[in-house]
Amino acid sequence: MSLNEEVEALRSVPLFAKIEPSRLKLLAFTSERLTFPAGQELFHQGDPGDAAYIILDGQADIVVDTLNGELVVAKVGKYDFVGEIAILIDVPRTATIRAETELTTLAITKDLFFRLISEFPDMSVEIMRELAHRLEATTAQLREAKSAA
Amino acid sequence: MSLNEEVEALRSVPLFAKIEPSRLKLLAFTSERLTFPAGQELFHQGDPGDAAYIILDGQADIVVDTLNGELVVAKVGKYDFVGEIAILIDVPRTATIRAETELTTLAITKDLFFRLISEFPDMSVEIMRELAHRLEATTAQLREAKSAA
Repeated sequence: MSLNEEVEALRSVPLFAKIEPSRLKLLAFTSERLTFPAGQELFHQGDPGDAAYIILDGQADIVVDTLNGELVVAKVGKYDFVGEIAILIDVPRTATIRAETELTTLAITKDLFFRLISEFPDMSVEIMRELAHRLEATTAQLREAKSAA
Repeated sequence: MSLNEEVEALRSVPLFAKIEPSRLKLLAFTSERLTFPAGQELFHQGDPGDAAYIILDGQADIVVDTLNGELVVAKVGKYDFVGEIAILIDVPRTATIRAETELTTLAITKDLFFRLISEFPDMSVEIMRELAHRLEATTAQLREAKSAA
């Protein structure tokens, strides 16, 4: 894919919607496009984490290991952002992400992540909203699990 | 409390550590100091939410209602930031916050919150870290609940 095509692709990611094309060129240069076949893990619960991923295409499961086996806690797809917890707070991966279909992602290293959010406040707001949504969904699942106990 | 004393108090809040004193005056003017006696709720699960709170002093429980009664999912205290989920994503309060001791808080309206995070990227990072910590803790509790089931 040419640099211009890559920039065009990045422009359609809502998280980057307000970033000028000239800056997106920098992002296209400094981030890495990674693909995963169906069934492969982007990372496993407990791994150390040094990158987050923006899903450009495909679907994946967020999976948590329990003593009773695996639990799919959420599904993610096009333009979702995953893996930022381990780079925000230096903890091992809190869940496994597994490609459900072939997955195309943009890998964002920790350094690049912090550079992006300090330069683009709108991106921070979107990431906060994403974290808030996931916290709400996980709290709802916990409420349900504790109601059934 | 005089305006200067209020600004001094705000400067000791880590979330505001990098904001210049002149800007903190604006915050002292536009935010409201609210106190809650022990046992009183800041808000109840299911309520609509229009403000977040920075705890300046005291301790509080984060409580979730389940069919088997209340579940204390976390405790918060001095300089913790609570209640931002409902203003980030327009959902009802996902949990109840109840003062465990007398609580002094700074109420931050939705408008002020968005103004602050767009002006102060460092604050966004701290809030993202806080959300990430809570998501990690809630996921761990869910994992445990599902392991016991």
